[in-house]
Amino acid sequence: MSDIETNLKQLFSKIDELKPAFIERLTKAVAIPSVSSDETLRPKVVEMANFLQNELKNLGADDISIKELGIQPPPVNDSNLKLPPIVLSKFGSDPNKKTILIYGHYDVQPALLEDGWNSDPFVLIEKDNKLIGRGSTDDKGPVMGWLNSLQAHKELNIPLPVNIVFCFEGMEESGSIGLDKLIQKEAKSYFNNVNSVCISDNYWLGTKKPVLTYGLRGCNYYQLIIKGPGADLHSGIFGGIIHEPMTDLIKVMSTLVDINGNILIPGVNEMVAPVTEKEDELYKDIEFDVNELNLASGSNTAIYQDKKNILMHRWRYPSLSLHGIEGAFSGAGAKTVIPSKVIGKFSIRTVPDMDSEKLTKLVTDFCNAKFKDLGSPNEFKAELIHDGAYWVSDPFNDEFTSAKLATKKVWGIEPDLTREGGSIPITLTFEQELGANVLLLPMGKGDDGAHSINEKLDVPNYIEGTKTLTAYLHYYGATK
Amino acid sequence: MSDIETNLKQLFSKIDELKPAFIERLTKAVAIPSVSSDETLRPKVVEMANFLQNELKNLGADDISIKELGIQPPPVNDSNLKLPPIVLSKFGSDPNKKTILIYGHYDVQPALLEDGWNSDPFVLIEKDNKLIGRGSTDDKGPVMGWLNSLQAHKELNIPLPVNIVFCFEGMEESGSIGLDKLIQKEAKSYFNNVNSVCISDNYWLGTKKPVLTYGLRGCNYYQLIIKGPGADLHSGIFGGIIHEPMTDLIKVMSTLVDINGNILIPGVNEMVAPVTEKEDELYKDIEFDVNELNLASGSNTAIYQDKKNILMHRWRYPSLSLHGIEGAFSGAGAKTVIPSKVIGKFSIRTVPDMDSEKLTKLVTDFCNAKFKDLGSPNEFKAELIHDGAYWVSDPFNDEFTSAKLATKKVWGIEPDLTREGGSIPITLTFEQELGANVLLLPMGKGDDGAHSINEKLDVPNYIEGTKTLTAYLHYYGATK
Repeated sequence: MSDIETNLKQLFSKIDELKPAFIERLTKAVAIPSVSSDETLRPKVVEMANFLQNELKNLGADDISIKELGIQPPPVNDSNLKLPPIVLSKFGSDPNKKTILIYGHYDVQPALLEDGWNSDPFVLIEKDNKLIGRGSTDDKGPVMGWLNSLQAHKELNIPLPVNIVFCFEGMEESGSIGLDKLIQKEAKSYFNNVNSVCISDNYWLGTKKPVLTYGLRGCNYYQLIIKGPGADLHSGIFGGIIHEPMTDLIKVMSTLVDINGNILIPGVNEMVAPVTEKEDELYKDIEFDVNELNLASGSNTAIYQDKKNILMHRWRYPSLSLHGIEGAFSGAGAKTVIPSKVIGKFSIRTVPDMDSEKLTKLVTDFCNAKFKDLGSPNEFKAELIHDGAYWVSDPFNDEFTSAKLATKKVWGIEPDLTREGGSIPITLTFEQELGANVLLLPMGKGDDGAHSINEKLDVPNYIEGTKTLTAYLHYYGATK
Repeated sequence: MSDIETNLKQLFSKIDELKPAFIERLTKAVAIPSVSSDETLRPKVVEMANFLQNELKNLGADDISIKELGIQPPPVNDSNLKLPPIVLSKFGSDPNKKTILIYGHYDVQPALLEDGWNSDPFVLIEKDNKLIGRGSTDDKGPVMGWLNSLQAHKELNIPLPVNIVFCFEGMEESGSIGLDKLIQKEAKSYFNNVNSVCISDNYWLGTKKPVLTYGLRGCNYYQLIIKGPGADLHSGIFGGIIHEPMTDLIKVMSTLVDINGNILIPGVNEMVAPVTEKEDELYKDIEFDVNELNLASGSNTAIYQDKKNILMHRWRYPSLSLHGIEGAFSGAGAKTVIPSKVIGKFSIRTVPDMDSEKLTKLVTDFCNAKFKDLGSPNEFKAELIHDGAYWVSDPFNDEFTSAKLATKKVWGIEPDLTREGGSIPITLTFEQELGANVLLLPMGKGDDGAHSINEKLDVPNYIEGTKTLTAYLHYYGATK
């Protein structure tokens, strides 16, 4: 048996032994309601940063550095509201070892018992082999997983196979304000020598098979602003005699996408990279079917019924969603208003090789032309609100190869190679600023309910997940 | 000088003297946010009914009768929600005098500071000779005007020239639920002996010349409900792979009307009565031009530039307005949501000879067909929320003749004879159930912003308006 396998055998046994302590660690973390979007709970977010700092200290960190980010920019109620700090930490600085940056976030989504939780969201309970509580899977479980792995190494006196740099933020659920700048600033200092980045902040595709994630869609969010009358008008008095902004907006919005999700803006689909044979192969073994989609959407409204089309249209083709209209009547009941200024919102999920600027030009040119065709005297403006780039990695690089070995070792099965339809914009920032490969190594399952009620992390995912992270460190540490 | 002129001289002088008290009365009324469409504010609507009851009592009403209307029918959130009462009251029962029923409503449209008001909508402020606040012109100002007139009579000890029956409702802005039935029920009891009905719940055509109104459009309000997923979904995960209700809804809504206000639902325009020569003549003398419309709309977005086309399309042709969407994202900024259930709202203003039931069948059949054409698996329903019929009267009867005299007396000018684009459905019910002529005698101006932000009533309109109502009572009381 190789050194690695000997070490992993001892580590896995220690992880099993420490299970009660690990659950206790997660219980303490969940008990701190570190909701970043709730200004009144900001002290709790800071308390969670302190909790982490203390854990890192007890685990023997070589360095802990608390990076303050200053005052939170508007819109805020409290104009002196401080952003929660970024908690940085180092374990080891051996120039003969590789250095992995591990990112996680210690803030959570809001949660109230009244939302429909079956138990207090901030009291972790174990039930039916699940750990239920806010943050259990997003992202306190995975963050504790890394700490658990360090504890096992420490108790066994097994040296870490890599140098570790932790980067834990407290604003992920609120736009990761300040993180981009910090990464840029520390790229050549605190994050110097980082060879690779590992993020454990997404989920298995389904509930049965572990996955590694090598791609994310980007997101370009647009608004169409149409302004007519000086104020909202009464439809009895003005209906039929003025050009109504809503009529114009609905006409333009109706031209963007068909009901089967096909984007109707010329040139957009042409930017999409063609599917290669090698890529095509990747979809064959993935475990997924339309029933899982229907279960997740709570309906039978799938556009595609076959696995490959569903996954490709979720991961590697763009999509356009109409989100809503600002300024129009949006309440219950009946209001006879002619809204004077309406703002239609839609976004396009982007994929390789869509260029954000080119896309925005196509979108705004198309919308401007459609509005011009109407011949309306109202004012029109189409504009980008924000964009975040897509990300795709090589799923056959050292990171993914090591993670495949680790997964196989722990779960006895080859992981599926997946992409995600959503965005984790920080992924690309790490890749670009540090010049390092990024691996997304999820711990939780597709049904964990990350942003929903009764969020959970299965006990096996927490414990075997900690083993997987541990094995990954050793296999990646052994690569050239 | 005749008795009438002597009395009016004293009354007008008293009204001028009581101006501060009258503004105080309106201030108190506006301070009660009696928004009938907001279930949470229902207690405030009831508070407003109590306020009126108290005022009527202080003015020496011979009878006050509070008519409860029971539970509000669906759609409601609170299935036990009580309708606000109808406040009935009598002043005088002299068989030698004519009896006028005066209708008004004490509920108001919704109003939030965030909508763009320059001041708290429920705090009446006086600025630039305007009284600004929600309900100032629609319809608390006119209702207070009648109470003001009674106060002037009372303080001078001048007997009322007619018997008065008040009928004040609290659901006008929400479809006048229950009022039709009450009128039917009381036609031969509380409303027995009513000779004539006067309603002051509309506006001058422009801002310079008083008007009397002899016609109203009706209003049929529709909603299109589209339901897909079981809950709102993340557009990153589900965008491109499920049929989005918003896409379907925007497609169907885009087929209803063109940007020039032409209704595209087959059969609707064919129901409209042809214009007669006599009717055509009435438009010649009316003081109005496109500049007034542009001033009122605060824009240069008029569909027609000539007086006759503008007025005809406001008054005697139907119109269709798209009001908004319930259930979609309606806030500021960007939210990447796929709404699971969206409800599109639109209404059609109706004119002679459009039949409501036939119209509803045309609308729902058309929308159902348009949705079916899409081939979407989402659930669709098109339905009428409420309807109110159009109304047209003889502008040369005793009521209109007396009101012309009253207007000339106070404002020194002959009023224009107008129709309205808006609806006061109850007008027709009063006419039909009581067999009485109805006069619409507006107090406010065309730029008051009845359903909009910064709603106002000019101080002269409030005070001279109170004089006009007073003069009307005396001139009509003297007719045979």
